[in-house]
Amino acid sequence: MASKVTPISGFQEWLPRERIAEQYVLDTIREVFELHGFASVSTRAVEPVERLSDQGEDADKEIYAVSRLAGGDDEARLGLHFDLTVPFARYVLENSGKLTFPFRRYQIQPAWRGERPQRGRYREFIQADVDIIDAAELPGHYEAELLLVIADVFGRLPVGAYQVHVNNRKICEGFYRAIGIEDVIGTLRIVDKLDKIGEDGVASLLLAAGCSQEQADRCLALARIRTSDTSFVQQVRALGVSHPVLEEGLTHLASVMETAAEHAPGVAVADLRIARGLDYYTGTVYETMLERDPGYGSVCSGGRYDALASDGKRTYPGVGISIGVSRLLGLLIGEEGLTASRETPAAVLVAVNDEETRSDSIRIAAALRSRGVPTLVAPKAAKFGKQIQFADRRGIPYVWFPGAGERGGDAVKDIRSGDQVDADAASWTPPAADLHATLVTPGSSD
Amino acid sequence: MASKVTPISGFQEWLPRERIAEQYVLDTIREVFELHGFASVSTRAVEPVERLSDQGEDADKEIYAVSRLAGGDDEARLGLHFDLTVPFARYVLENSGKLTFPFRRYQIQPAWRGERPQRGRYREFIQADVDIIDAAELPGHYEAELLLVIADVFGRLPVGAYQVHVNNRKICEGFYRAIGIEDVIGTLRIVDKLDKIGEDGVASLLLAAGCSQEQADRCLALARIRTSDTSFVQQVRALGVSHPVLEEGLTHLASVMETAAEHAPGVAVADLRIARGLDYYTGTVYETMLERDPGYGSVCSGGRYDALASDGKRTYPGVGISIGVSRLLGLLIGEEGLTASRETPAAVLVAVNDEETRSDSIRIAAALRSRGVPTLVAPKAAKFGKQIQFADRRGIPYVWFPGAGERGGDAVKDIRSGDQVDADAASWTPPAADLHATLVTPGSSD
Repeated sequence: MASKVTPISGFQEWLPRERIAEQYVLDTIREVFELHGFASVSTRAVEPVERLSDQGEDADKEIYAVSRLAGGDDEARLGLHFDLTVPFARYVLENSGKLTFPFRRYQIQPAWRGERPQRGRYREFIQADVDIIDAAELPGHYEAELLLVIADVFGRLPVGAYQVHVNNRKICEGFYRAIGIEDVIGTLRIVDKLDKIGEDGVASLLLAAGCSQEQADRCLALARIRTSDTSFVQQVRALGVSHPVLEEGLTHLASVMETAAEHAPGVAVADLRIARGLDYYTGTVYETMLERDPGYGSVCSGGRYDALASDGKRTYPGVGISIGVSRLLGLLIGEEGLTASRETPAAVLVAVNDEETRSDSIRIAAALRSRGVPTLVAPKAAKFGKQIQFADRRGIPYVWFPGAGERGGDAVKDIRSGDQVDADAASWTPPAADLHATLVTPGSSD
Repeated sequence: MASKVTPISGFQEWLPRERIAEQYVLDTIREVFELHGFASVSTRAVEPVERLSDQGEDADKEIYAVSRLAGGDDEARLGLHFDLTVPFARYVLENSGKLTFPFRRYQIQPAWRGERPQRGRYREFIQADVDIIDAAELPGHYEAELLLVIADVFGRLPVGAYQVHVNNRKICEGFYRAIGIEDVIGTLRIVDKLDKIGEDGVASLLLAAGCSQEQADRCLALARIRTSDTSFVQQVRALGVSHPVLEEGLTHLASVMETAAEHAPGVAVADLRIARGLDYYTGTVYETMLERDPGYGSVCSGGRYDALASDGKRTYPGVGISIGVSRLLGLLIGEEGLTASRETPAAVLVAVNDEETRSDSIRIAAALRSRGVPTLVAPKAAKFGKQIQFADRRGIPYVWFPGAGERGGDAVKDIRSGDQVDADAASWTPPAADLHATLVTPGSSD
């Protein structure tokens, strides 16, 4: 295999230290999801193409089709999933008789979209999702609860300040209907472009879609409302529009904001221009911006959907959020240099005195591992200076010298300080801070 | 999305309890790999098709090609990787200037093959690989070390008795050359079919490939040798064939068997018919059979390769093993019913007295979670009997009742025994055995 090796645009891979930082983030997310009682689900990478292409947002253009290279398939056409919500909805339908509802699941897997790679957007990316799905009816308090889950996750990650922007599609839907706009989804899609094309751009598109100037102005007036408490309700009322669906949306969003204020103060912003691109959302929608770089886009998004999972007889409404792990790490690791304190899990390198006594070193390593200490045996019985250098290059803090202690015992050296002490592999343990690689945030290393 | 939902043959998915058992196995494998100082690598799912189709064993027929559904690609043709060795070799070449050699990596990811699904063979399957790769030269002791890593992993998994069958391709190569067979790879591929078609079938294929009857007989005589110590060396010598490459193979395999006997007694068998299908192996090869079902096929295979990773200037020899996690779990979970003690990570359900005091329950749950206790809040302020039933159905062992303790404090009930005690969310912790879901092996539940 001597062909040329080049990266593939949009498919990100990390070096070992960066990967340890990624694992730290993935492990933290999983830990919090499990603390909140979400059960893990892992779905296959492929779905029938017709299930994927049914989800709006020009989904077709982004789908990667999968087929056997040699041909001869008589099967359904398959595609790689572009998110984890669509496969989860299918999983719920397929296993509905075997699941206990309300069903809380988390899912951390890659997804794929064939779109043009750009900053924060990849063709292969890891998502970390939680969803709560119920049979027939889903209590509204789950829409507030997910916000608290996000707050718990982000509070444990090195992301700095962030805010979850929350809206309720019913506010937009009721408002649009009240002012005479019929095409709610089409209007939401246009308003969703505010960040990219600005108010003038959105106004033009709304006019082109058949809105009057007054309708367009009122859509923009609604989208301008953003409050860190429940005062958005008064601001909407001041626009002089009323509709039962609008009222329902205001009540729900106010309730979400109140729960957030009580249990995760400072995290949520009611932001009435948040629309989300996907068609299936029907209630609360979320987007999460990092204060250090709001223009980077949302790193955690989701919302409530009422009809995504339906088999024609029963419908399973749900609410979910998805952390864009690859997008988040593209910033933290890729741009800012978040990394790990060493490039291997090993805390100890056991030196080899000579190849004839390699067995002794293997036994020492096994003893340390049996008590949870990640340990390597040196590759060669080289001079000790070389063996220490081997550890140093990888960031391994300790080198173990068989037989170098007093009375024939062993000794272990902290190669950072040079301190060497007698040690017994049956009992010695490194300090907790050295046992596993730790996160190194840029600028914190000295 | 109301279309019909049917499983896709060869793509296995688990229910929540089964998934927890799968996670236990995956976590255990990862833990052992890290204890042995392997660094994690995760590679993209796709490789250029020409890199995948270069690996022999009719690889072309198995590759899943990936292309944008909407077409218009001007990129290289891509395919899903069919193992983790080929992407790892590419990763090493791509990052050779940034890696420290010898480089030890583990990688736990799905792979895909478009072959006909059958017992233990899936179209999507998780592999857990470790490899040690070096620049230019790789010491032989790593070939023994990987056997000890397998032993450490399998010793911690509920797999029962197993044996690692080990061979060295140099034994076959030297032997075949010594008796006048030129096409070593072709002969290895035929001998690899012994399990499937038996000695007569292999003899016929060897004759059809141009071997004489005597050559075929001697190939089969070599393949019959199987010893649990180093006595295979004498048995090979008794066949009266000599060749320098054969000698080299015998020495290496004897050394691997000696290390295994010392550090993992009873695990290894020298088995001279082990060939492995893939072309790239050049030294030690491994296959692992479970004693409970040897006909199920190997659940952990690998070997040494000398020329897989080469950029034309430099070559990176390596040795690796791959645990067929999906195959293993197809047996343990799918056929034998290995499962978990509950279907959620939650150890505690906090009851809700009425919707007005849901906030109290949320605060209690947050306090328990902050000390690492996975906790859920009840979905509805239903009668307590209903709330206990909610926990019972999911296997959650404890229900927390706000305000039900003496002097206005809380109380927690073990719903298995019915025991209820006063408790403070700031300090109460369940017994360690109840904190996380545990493995339930079939027949052990009562």
